Amino acid sequence: MDESAFIASLRALATHPAARGLLDDAAVLEIGGERLVLTHDMIVEGVHYLPEDPPEDVAWKLVAVNLSDLAAKGARPTGALLGYALGEAEWDIAFAEGLTTALTAFELPLLGGDTVAMPAGAPRALGLTALGLAGARVPSRSGARPGDQLWLSGAIGDAGAGLALLQRGESEPADLVERYRLPRPRLEAGQRLAPIVNAMMDVSDGLLIDAARMAAASACAARIDLESLPLSDALLALHGDRRETRLAAASAGDDYELLFAAAPDAAAAILALAEETGLGLTRIGAFIAGRGLSLFDRSDPLPLPARLGFEHRA
Amino acid sequence: MDESAFIASLRALATHPAARGLLDDAAVLEIGGERLVLTHDMIVEGVHYLPEDPPEDVAWKLVAVNLSDLAAKGARPTGALLGYALGEAEWDIAFAEGLTTALTAFELPLLGGDTVAMPAGAPRALGLTALGLAGARVPSRSGARPGDQLWLSGAIGDAGAGLALLQRGESEPADLVERYRLPRPRLEAGQRLAPIVNAMMDVSDGLLIDAARMAAASACAARIDLESLPLSDALLALHGDRRETRLAAASAGDDYELLFAAAPDAAAAILALAEETGLGLTRIGAFIAGRGLSLFDRSDPLPLPARLGFEHRA
Repeated sequence: MDESAFIASLRALATHPAARGLLDDAAVLEIGGERLVLTHDMIVEGVHYLPEDPPEDVAWKLVAVNLSDLAAKGARPTGALLGYALGEAEWDIAFAEGLTTALTAFELPLLGGDTVAMPAGAPRALGLTALGLAGARVPSRSGARPGDQLWLSGAIGDAGAGLALLQRGESEPADLVERYRLPRPRLEAGQRLAPIVNAMMDVSDGLLIDAARMAAASACAARIDLESLPLSDALLALHGDRRETRLAAASAGDDYELLFAAAPDAAAAILALAEETGLGLTRIGAFIAGRGLSLFDRSDPLPLPARLGFEHRA
Repeated sequence: MDESAFIASLRALATHPAARGLLDDAAVLEIGGERLVLTHDMIVEGVHYLPEDPPEDVAWKLVAVNLSDLAAKGARPTGALLGYALGEAEWDIAFAEGLTTALTAFELPLLGGDTVAMPAGAPRALGLTALGLAGARVPSRSGARPGDQLWLSGAIGDAGAGLALLQRGESEPADLVERYRLPRPRLEAGQRLAPIVNAMMDVSDGLLIDAARMAAASACAARIDLESLPLSDALLALHGDRRETRLAAASAGDDYELLFAAAPDAAAAILALAEETGLGLTRIGAFIAGRGLSLFDRSDPLPLPARLGFEHRA
C-alpha cells in the first residue's frame, strides 16, 4: 500500500460534507451559521525543511503553509493549535522566537496544542492546525468549468530555485532562498477572490501537478500556456528565460501561490484587484471540456514532463 | 530551556480567551453562539506508545486521548483532523483499520489532515485535532473552590500496571494491558457532569500530578485520601491492596479518567449519575484553602512521593 492507497482508506472515513472528501485544501464546517475552515499540515525535518534551515524560518513556514490553505478558501485566520516535538534546547528557543514573529505578523492567537518529547536523535515532526472564518462562498478545488480561465498569483519557481541553491550549499541570490524559507500566504487576495472565482487552491506541490488536481476534481481538462507563467526577475536573471526554466518552475514546489479558475467575465475584477493590492494575478491557461492537463509553449503543444511536482511528500 | 520554559514562551502567544492560557485540556472558542472545543494531542513511538503495540491500538489511543480532553470539557465530539507520518506499509494498513474502528465507535467523522513522509527509520509522530461542541457551561481546570469535593471516574492504576507488564515482556492480565492500550474517554459522563461540577480535567499524567495542577490552577489546596481511591479488581488481584499499590496507581499515567471538583450539594446528583450510567464516580478528597497537594491514608498524613506522575512527556 502506498500513500495514495492509505489516503483512499482515510477517505472512507471522511463521510461528513465538511470534509469535502479530503479532496480540498481544508475542511469547511458550518457552526452556528458561520463557516469555520480547518486545516492541519505537518512539516518534517529532512522532508519539508532542511535540517540546517534556521529554526525561526521553520516556525514561519509551519504557520505559512497552513495559512496558505486558509487563503485558498478565502478564510480569515482566527487561531492555531501547535503540535511540537521538543528537541535540542537552543533550537526550541529559536523556534519559539520565530513562532512569535509569525503569529504576530498574521495576528493569529495560539489557542492550544501539545508539546511532546521525541526519542533522542529523531527527526522532528511539527504540526499546526489553523482555523479561519470564511465568507458566504468558500471556493473548492472542484468548481472549475470548461470555459473558465486559469489564473495564478505572484510568481512561481522561486522557492524551488531557492531549495536547489541550498542543496548545493549556496545561499545567493537571497531573494530565492527567502522565497523557499519564508513563504507568504496570499490571505488578502484569497479573501477578495473567494466571491468571484469558481475554484481555488494553493500551489504547494508544483503548478503542473496542482493544476492537474484541480482539473481532475472539477471533471474537466486544463491547458497551461508556458510562456504566460509569471517568473520573478531574480529567477530569470539566474536561469534565463528559457523553456527549461519555465518547465522547472512549473514543476517545483513550495510556491504557496493561489491557483484559481474564474469565468471570463470576472477577468476585469481580477485585474483590478491585482492593480489595487500590488500582487500580480496572471492568466496562465484555461479549462476545457475533457480530462487531464495539456501544456503549450507559444501555441506549440509540449509533452508533459515526467515529473509534474511532489507527489508523495505532503 | 526545558519544556516548561518553552511552554511559558508559547503562553505569551496565547492571548485569546479561547486559549484559556494554555492551562486547560482544550481551547474553547465561541463561534456563532456555539462553544467549539478544540484539542490537539500527539503521540510518539517509544514515548507514548511502545513500538510493538498493535497499530490498531495505537490508532485507538490517538483518538481516545484527544476525545478524553473533549470529555473533560463536557463536549460532544464532532470531527477530527489527522496528522499522520507514513512508515512501514503493513503498519499503515493496520493503523487505518484501527482508525476506522475508533472513528466508527465514536461516530466521529474525519474532516481533514495531512499525511507526510518521514525519513527512513524515524520514530513516528502522530497528531490528531479533535473538535467538539459543548453546552452552556464548559468546566475549566481552574474552577475548584475550598469546600469542594474531589471526585474521580472509573478506576486508576490499571493502565500504569498494564504498561509495566508490557515493559517486562508480559501480556497478562489482559484487562490491565487493554486499559493501557485502549483507553476509554468518558464522554457521556463528561457531558452530564459539565453542568454540575466546578472544575474538570482528565487524568493523563497521573492522579497526583493532575490533582496538583487542578489545585494550582484553582488557587487552592487539594487533599487526597489514598484509601478512597477506586482500584480495579484486576489490579488488586495482581498487586494486593497495599499502600504501595495505591501510591503506584496514584502516580501512574494513561488512566484517562475524569477528575472533577463539585460542591457538596452536588454529591447526590453525581452518585445518581454513577448509578444510572454504571461508571463509578468516587469521592477521593477535597479542596481546602491554601496551596499544594496533601495526601492521607486513613487520616494519617503521608509524604508525597518523589514522582507525582509524568511531567515531561505530554
